[in-house]
Amino acid sequence: MKINQNYNKLPHNYLFTEIALRTEKYIKTHPTQKVIKLGIGDVTQPLSPVIANAMKQAVEELTKKETFRGYGPELGHVWARQSVADYYKNEMNVVLDIDEITIGDGIGEDLANITDLFNHGGNTVVIQDPVYPLYQSTTLMDSNDIIYVPCNEANGFLPTPPDSHSDIIYLCSPNNPTGAAFNFSQLKAWVDYALENNAIILFDAAYERFTSNNDCPRSIFQIEGARNCAIEFGSLSKTAGFSCIRSGYTIVPNDLNRDGMNLLRMWQQRQTTKYNGANYITQRGLEAALTPQGLKDADRNIAYYHHNAGLITSMLKEKGLFFTGGESSPYVWLKCPNGMKSWDFFQYLLDTVQVIGTPGVGFGPSGEGYFRLSAFNSTEQTIEALERLDTIL
Amino acid sequence: MKINQNYNKLPHNYLFTEIALRTEKYIKTHPTQKVIKLGIGDVTQPLSPVIANAMKQAVEELTKKETFRGYGPELGHVWARQSVADYYKNEMNVVLDIDEITIGDGIGEDLANITDLFNHGGNTVVIQDPVYPLYQSTTLMDSNDIIYVPCNEANGFLPTPPDSHSDIIYLCSPNNPTGAAFNFSQLKAWVDYALENNAIILFDAAYERFTSNNDCPRSIFQIEGARNCAIEFGSLSKTAGFSCIRSGYTIVPNDLNRDGMNLLRMWQQRQTTKYNGANYITQRGLEAALTPQGLKDADRNIAYYHHNAGLITSMLKEKGLFFTGGESSPYVWLKCPNGMKSWDFFQYLLDTVQVIGTPGVGFGPSGEGYFRLSAFNSTEQTIEALERLDTIL
Repeated sequence: MKINQNYNKLPHNYLFTEIALRTEKYIKTHPTQKVIKLGIGDVTQPLSPVIANAMKQAVEELTKKETFRGYGPELGHVWARQSVADYYKNEMNVVLDIDEITIGDGIGEDLANITDLFNHGGNTVVIQDPVYPLYQSTTLMDSNDIIYVPCNEANGFLPTPPDSHSDIIYLCSPNNPTGAAFNFSQLKAWVDYALENNAIILFDAAYERFTSNNDCPRSIFQIEGARNCAIEFGSLSKTAGFSCIRSGYTIVPNDLNRDGMNLLRMWQQRQTTKYNGANYITQRGLEAALTPQGLKDADRNIAYYHHNAGLITSMLKEKGLFFTGGESSPYVWLKCPNGMKSWDFFQYLLDTVQVIGTPGVGFGPSGEGYFRLSAFNSTEQTIEALERLDTIL
Repeated sequence: MKINQNYNKLPHNYLFTEIALRTEKYIKTHPTQKVIKLGIGDVTQPLSPVIANAMKQAVEELTKKETFRGYGPELGHVWARQSVADYYKNEMNVVLDIDEITIGDGIGEDLANITDLFNHGGNTVVIQDPVYPLYQSTTLMDSNDIIYVPCNEANGFLPTPPDSHSDIIYLCSPNNPTGAAFNFSQLKAWVDYALENNAIILFDAAYERFTSNNDCPRSIFQIEGARNCAIEFGSLSKTAGFSCIRSGYTIVPNDLNRDGMNLLRMWQQRQTTKYNGANYITQRGLEAALTPQGLKDADRNIAYYHHNAGLITSMLKEKGLFFTGGESSPYVWLKCPNGMKSWDFFQYLLDTVQVIGTPGVGFGPSGEGYFRLSAFNSTEQTIEALERLDTIL
């Protein structure tokens, strides 16, 4: 019996465990202090009624013999895939064939599962540093080599492609954790690099709807040539509040061929073999989320989070601290004052003003000396946290 | 860029496509004839009200700021895992630690994803023939070798372990497609073989609640030694009617170590990395499905399907045709009369009495000459189909 020993290579990422432990310890020893969390990378605004009603109606359908359903299509219902195609056409002027769209359970799942299509071993993978930990963990599990591309103040946290060859490239824009978003020409440089190297870009578009700058693409398919080198992953978690419901979509262009294989055909084979289709109730929710009313409700929530982000960035500007993000993202990535290290700044904020953020070094070595604040808490809590920070920064 | 060329090894399994095409062609040329489908491998009875109410309430919770939820635990909510632990204790007298239970989106997904834990290449995999196609496809995608174990009239479609060594063993009991169920001593022989060979049994228990014979185990963990060699996969699709909702659970015993690694720890690493947790609404549905009322409703549906299966097997007995299944399974596996081949019998039934079944050869070469009838249609339709079959068998 041969076990996948690559699991031994996985880093022990204690980031969120360590935050929880330090917070718990503080609360225990200071029971009367009120701690405010600006570390959370998750939505807090409730589900839109139009989505809830669609889902309740779907549940009700299943209770009646006449409208009960069994297994659905593995790649997603045609109406759900059409909703995504319409979204891309109406919002981004990107024309997709519905066969290029599959409905899944979220970006995390699909980004992990897409690596089934690539050889495990023998591929070189580009990953930004700092970064959402999934990309690195999956690559290590698959025994591929990694080129880390540092994101730092010098490149505005928007790195250019490496000089050497690579095969697979993870990009997330607007980015988690830095909040930085590529503009059209910056993203075009990555597409050109991928085409030259016959590489595939795995484009994580989880935060596309937070893009408030017209100079920044929301889909990589807004860039010429991307249909020949990119796969895009979309999510309803951060826009429609589906993080506990799990819903997303993946777009593999028809035109994507490598090593004698068509990647769309392979992805369809993978999903029809190893996946039994997304939840019917959830797909009705996705459909409702992408209606004009659903999108209006999403935009109201995003405006709420943007407002919080604006409050955070206003204070940082006033204090003269370097930061990126906030404009096209719910995350603000700031440089710790006075050259403090990420964890020292975390502890300093907790001890002095009882505000929790996320130490940048937890997302990778280039995150050392940085700190992530999230706009996902309530406006009231955000204001209170900023009033406290004002007293010490 | 190196692509997973194993996808080229996947068989072009035209079984259900071919059935659909032949049926469509018949209906087009005989528009006035009524076709009855006994081929369907999917439930038809509606969702229990107790489940629907729990899910609607969960949706409602998400519409209110006070009760809205973001990401849940990747391995499942504690209360959902506790429901499964209680089910095993109360129904099968199997004691599980809730840490050994993960909540997922169904057996198909978890059975495919568990293979991440094993080396791709270098393992020998035992698969029954005929069989549910997923096991073979996943193994081929993972580049492992296959030993097919024929299921036939001689062994009552309940094969004994092979003489040679293997590393991974897929077992499904009660079986799809044959409906045959291992008794305690037959399953014990497989556990003993796995222990001797240091192999892992992947036990697909999708139909465990259809077991009506006390001599047949419902969980492999009812067999001594199984905690050291087996992983079990359970589903709510066939019992509570969740096939379009997607819900299941996987049990990896704490005691399962191979090649210096603990498989439960690896599975937890896999799920916390590549999976973001099961849908909250669905987990509330699972919890309701495993309450006394939910199980009572499931049993009413299973009794309905068993009644249909009994009608089918009564006719086959009367006609003196060999069959297996039906007793502990919604499937009846019969030998085609007069030495007919599976597809010839399919076409004969369609042309003469307009009844659709599933050709056994579609599940593997040893299925040639056999045919699967399903008890999942309504009793009215089943009776009408049997009246028609009575005239030609």
